[in-house]
Amino acid sequence: MGDITPERQHILVALPYSQEMTEIFDKIKAKHPNVDFTCQRATFTPDKTTVAKIPDDYWKEFTIIVTFSTLPSDPKLAPNLNWIHFMSAGTNHIANTPIYKDSLIPLTTSSGIHGPQIAEWVIMQILSNSHNEKVMLQYQREHKWASKAEIGSIRDSVGQRLGVLGYGSIGRQTARVAKALGMDIIAYTASPRKTSESKKDTGYIVPHTGDPDGTLPSAWFSGLDKASLHHFLSQDIDVLLIAVPLTPKTLHFLGAAEFGILGRKNALIVNIARGSIVVQDELIVALNKTPEEGGLRGAALDVTDPEPLGEESELWEMRNVAVTPHVSGQGTAYVERSFAILERNLTNWEEERRLINVVDRARGY
Amino acid sequence: MGDITPERQHILVALPYSQEMTEIFDKIKAKHPNVDFTCQRATFTPDKTTVAKIPDDYWKEFTIIVTFSTLPSDPKLAPNLNWIHFMSAGTNHIANTPIYKDSLIPLTTSSGIHGPQIAEWVIMQILSNSHNEKVMLQYQREHKWASKAEIGSIRDSVGQRLGVLGYGSIGRQTARVAKALGMDIIAYTASPRKTSESKKDTGYIVPHTGDPDGTLPSAWFSGLDKASLHHFLSQDIDVLLIAVPLTPKTLHFLGAAEFGILGRKNALIVNIARGSIVVQDELIVALNKTPEEGGLRGAALDVTDPEPLGEESELWEMRNVAVTPHVSGQGTAYVERSFAILERNLTNWEEERRLINVVDRARGY
Repeated sequence: MGDITPERQHILVALPYSQEMTEIFDKIKAKHPNVDFTCQRATFTPDKTTVAKIPDDYWKEFTIIVTFSTLPSDPKLAPNLNWIHFMSAGTNHIANTPIYKDSLIPLTTSSGIHGPQIAEWVIMQILSNSHNEKVMLQYQREHKWASKAEIGSIRDSVGQRLGVLGYGSIGRQTARVAKALGMDIIAYTASPRKTSESKKDTGYIVPHTGDPDGTLPSAWFSGLDKASLHHFLSQDIDVLLIAVPLTPKTLHFLGAAEFGILGRKNALIVNIARGSIVVQDELIVALNKTPEEGGLRGAALDVTDPEPLGEESELWEMRNVAVTPHVSGQGTAYVERSFAILERNLTNWEEERRLINVVDRARGY
Repeated sequence: MGDITPERQHILVALPYSQEMTEIFDKIKAKHPNVDFTCQRATFTPDKTTVAKIPDDYWKEFTIIVTFSTLPSDPKLAPNLNWIHFMSAGTNHIANTPIYKDSLIPLTTSSGIHGPQIAEWVIMQILSNSHNEKVMLQYQREHKWASKAEIGSIRDSVGQRLGVLGYGSIGRQTARVAKALGMDIIAYTASPRKTSESKKDTGYIVPHTGDPDGTLPSAWFSGLDKASLHHFLSQDIDVLLIAVPLTPKTLHFLGAAEFGILGRKNALIVNIARGSIVVQDELIVALNKTPEEGGLRGAALDVTDPEPLGEESELWEMRNVAVTPHVSGQGTAYVERSFAILERNLTNWEEERRLINVVDRARGY
């Protein structure tokens, strides 16, 4: 490859950040001297998308766009585009634009970069629940050196079983940490993963994290029907992580029947996906039952139905419930990691290899 | 070995538990039919040791004692003892008894069984600090769906460095989980560990946990002098775990000078060892400094100086500090794991191999 001069890449960065980009650009340019960056500051609109004002005749200058939602109104305005990189994990929010509907320009997402951040939130909640952290913090507020009996009984995670409903980047990194804690992992996916090839993570993986080859689970389960789901939930699960996308098939996927199965082992439920994947009223009923009645041990919810959660909701006050305002994925490493995907794709492009994290327009993600 | 009938072992169990033992005994007897258990219920005394009333002429029946602190007043009363197994991690509390001072009866401890339990407390505190969990819980108490800005900036652990001061069973299991989180680990031990043999954990390890071969740290440091300590603390540490035993050499091991070094990276301090290893007043000063002044990011303290921590202490109210009442090692798996060490030693005895977790009376642990 030493003789090939890679084509120039002129990248338009239309993002709502004013700082912290120069260092990232410099790092990329050190590895890819053929790349130029041009910034057009985007701003948040009332519907929380971001838009930069870009004249129609400006787009043709660029070979790559990096954006949340700023796009040319017509694909013809941007004849030199090699691809468009989105800072978001998905592209649902631009699925009605001409670029999505009427062009074949490759769209790459930032899917995968949330693994470590959200997995940490999950692990924190699992430990917080089992170590009675809320009780400890209450005594701290009271300046009270409590007795062991007042703190209550603590069971560590060694030998406990984590069920991961949706074994994507978040589920895999949670599995990695849970395994290190001494837990057993079982995985659930929509379609069967019977071959070692099919168990691999084909998307972007933050280095040193995740389960790239899918070797951590002791067993795999699959299916989108209730019988398959119930078979999975019957596997003596101590902690269930809900990490499936919300689709018509996963809407209200978990309700009274499913909590009944999970209640046999008084499982803890952790939801970082979408609130409406569970039937929230039935979750509350299951949380209010005693262990003897087959109640759930607790729930950690970063997502609720609806959002924001109404201030009258019973969930806020429940001793065994943690509610956070859909922030588990919020972290300062976000921008840096999204650009790491862009950088990987610059290399792939130069080496004429396939881009990673490309949206399948037919499948929708 | 099939032909050898192992000698009978008659085990006296003098512990303050009335229940949950039968299942443990049955499990051991299934593997060791030559073993009998006799229970003598011990009770807690005002100084928090436990004592069972056992007549002088009763001890000679037994080949093993399992206890916290119930011992024959004279080693001669128990001529048939093969060893004594302590449920505690150390034997300092019986160091003045005739059994310790005037006999050579092997004493085995439960050192090592706390690894997973305490490591979980450590990981929970690291994540709780970096994810602003106290802020999240405050909003939950207010029934408020806070904005991302109100929750504040969160940096996950990928690429951060954990310094483990004292690389024993707790430090090793913390390292295992931290490594899975994507952290870099550096280890500090009293004496140098230059060979791969010396890096091994020779004590009891809860299965599937820890760092048995000492392969996780990217670098090892050692020494008990200030220069060695400062060299270690200068290695860009983001989180420092204090897990050394309290000895005359580690008393007030960390004070203003050490916090000054750690403050260059605004490190988080986690102490699960003993409160007096740090100079607490100087820790508070370092915690009150801003990041620009080289202040510490926070502290998680399961131990304080003195204990209980006085209710007037500033530590209780500090936003960036978690205080818990010396409970990080308290867990329901304790008894089961201590008996796993006993079981391992029954096997070692039968196979004429060395017992594990034997106290070196000269060294004191």
